[in-house]
Formats: sequence, C-alpha cells, structure tokens
Amino acid sequence: MPEPIDFYFDFYSPYGYLASLQIDQLAARFGREVRWCPFMLGAVFKVEGLAPLVDIPLVGEYARNDFARSARLLGAPFVLPEGFPKAALAPSRAYYWITDRDAGAARRFAKRVYPAVFAEGRDVTEPAVTADLAAQVGIDGDELSAALQEPAVKDRLKQETAHAIERGVCGSPFIFVDGEPFWGNDRLWQVEKWLQTSGW
Amino acid sequence: MPEPIDFYFDFYSPYGYLASLQIDQLAARFGREVRWCPFMLGAVFKVEGLAPLVDIPLVGEYARNDFARSARLLGAPFVLPEGFPKAALAPSRAYYWITDRDAGAARRFAKRVYPAVFAEGRDVTEPAVTADLAAQVGIDGDELSAALQEPAVKDRLKQETAHAIERGVCGSPFIFVDGEPFWGNDRLWQVEKWLQTSGW
Repeated sequence: MPEPIDFYFDFYSPYGYLASLQIDQLAARFGREVRWCPFMLGAVFKVEGLAPLVDIPLVGEYARNDFARSARLLGAPFVLPEGFPKAALAPSRAYYWITDRDAGAARRFAKRVYPAVFAEGRDVTEPAVTADLAAQVGIDGDELSAALQEPAVKDRLKQETAHAIERGVCGSPFIFVDGEPFWGNDRLWQVEKWLQTSGW
Repeated sequence: MPEPIDFYFDFYSPYGYLASLQIDQLAARFGREVRWCPFMLGAVFKVEGLAPLVDIPLVGEYARNDFARSARLLGAPFVLPEGFPKAALAPSRAYYWITDRDAGAARRFAKRVYPAVFAEGRDVTEPAVTADLAAQVGIDGDELSAALQEPAVKDRLKQETAHAIERGVCGSPFIFVDGEPFWGNDRLWQVEKWLQTSGW
C-alpha cells in the first residue's frame, strides 16, 4: 500500500482552496489516499519574516488578479473574503478535534469550510460559524464549540503547525509525495508527473 | 500581426534561465515573437521589501531543491553559481547596448549568458567575462567594455528596470501576453493556455 500524500493548507489560503478542489481526485488516479493537514500559515510567515502575499508591494496586485484568474481556470467560484487574510484558528482546531473522532467527517468538514470562506463569504473565524459548518457534516455543534475552548485542542493545532514547519512547509498549499515537497496550486501538474514517473 | 510576448528576466534568476530555454519555441507555436527584457531583480526586491529566495528561512531550502529538480525536468544542466545571488549589471547593461545595434545579436548574447551562468559557472559580473561572451556572438568586446562604463548605458538599464516595476513585474521570470501578467517558470503552461484560448 503506497504512502498517503500529505496535503498542507491554511483555510484562508486562496491557492489552498483551489488545490483542495483537485487533490483527492488527482491522488485517486494513482491509488493514493490524501492526508489533509491544516496549519497556521501566519506562523510560517513569522518564521520566514514575510507578510501575507496581498500586503507585499507589486506581489499583492499580481496575486489579487491571479487568485480570481486561477479560480476561473478551474470553473470554481471565488470571492476574496472581507478582511482577508484572517487567522483560521476555529476551523483548524475543529478539524483536528473532529479527525480524532471521525476522520471521514473531518474531511467532509474541511471540504465544507473552504467554499464557505471563498464562495459564500462566511466568516469562519467566528466559532459559531465553524460549529454550524461542522453540524452540516453531522458533528454536534455545541460539543465542538465547548471543545474549541480547551487548551489541549489549541495545543494540538500548535503542534501540527510546528510539525509542518519542521518538515519545511513554506507556504500553502504544500504537498509531500513520498517525502518530495511541492509548493503551490500551480505545481499540481508536477505532483501528477511525480506520481506518474516516481520522480525524475 | 499579433503583439510580441514580453519576457522579463534577471540573468541570475534560476527560474528565468529555465524559462529562457522554452519561451521562444512556445511563442513560435502561436506565431508570436518574444521581446527579451533583462532587469535588475534586486531593485524589485527592494520595492517589495523581500530578500532573495535562498535567504528566506524555509523558502531557501525548498528553492535550492526546486531549482535543481526543475532543471532535471527539462533535461537542462544546472549549477547554482558561486556567491549566488549576484547582481547581473554587466550583462544586463550589455544586452541593451547590443540591442540598439543588432537585436538578433542581443538575443544570441542573452542565450549565451544564461548557460554561462547556470551551466558553466562563469562569473558574468566580471565585465571581461561579459565582453568575452559578447565576442562569441560577433560583438566587439573592447567596444562593449568601454560602453559599459558610460553613464548613458548605466541609465538605460535603470530606466528599463523602473519601467518593469511600473508595469507590475514582481519577480523573474515575468511574462506579459497581450497585457496579461504571468509570474514564474512554473506558469508557462498557463501562458500556453492563454495563447491557445485568448484568455479564459
């Protein structure tokens, strides 16, 4: 059984959203599972000493055009969230809490969060919104809301983010195929080629 | 007659080098010419407040692996130059000076500089090396060496770089197709798609 593909992403990353629409199908064509791993991109930027893309002169203007253009290419709806970029603490903490109870539900939850952020303009930094989205995939919203306050649940996300940084995750999305790192939605064609040829 | 494609690049940009090996053939498949426009990436980084890729924590390690991996994918030789990254003042100034005399020779010169930097390990920041490479494409090396000292020749590169920044060039390589911007060697597939479909 081949190793799963590791898919690292931040819930407020437009390119992470676009990759999330493709990664499972891409992996399935090669008989691979995907391990979804949300992390806090802000923590990575801190290590890198970088600002968010949209706040960097020249890059910001390019990125705003490219987010929308990249979504059009996939035929995916896209709206830049109000107040972008934000810290996706609530859904990221929720994801790992749900994962420990029901991995399938956690996957469905992640796939529900991304369009809520980038197509429906919902503010998932609000724990109540995160709880509502979780309820839509069969998770008890009240129980989740209580869990989001627990230190252990907060620590879990910190650990997952620290682990991502240790592995060299430098942006979102970031994908490992058999240990080989690929950064960016625009590298999915290389991920596919790597899977086809077992490297080059 | 369709507009030429504008190909912006820095002579010390690994991804610029890799794009330089493909851009003319790509454009020719669509009956397009390419306007080659070297600029000083360091000036762009200054506007952006960014360090060179290899000096950014996490990104640096990823980039070093990715430079070599991207070159292997093309079957192109690749060696990271000693002291990388450097400021390609001499060849960039030389390029525009040659362009004004013989555009074809300037193109051949640019295509000679890139492998000198990334395959042969030559230090093109040395005016004598730049003059030697120019001589290999039929340019008088002594005349060029004298020209590289002229304020007008230095100003020309400053103006070209300022113009690139005005147009929104935020990295190397950077390509405009009918005004539409594409950043990165890994976006050439999108440049091709844009040419095929006149946008999407």
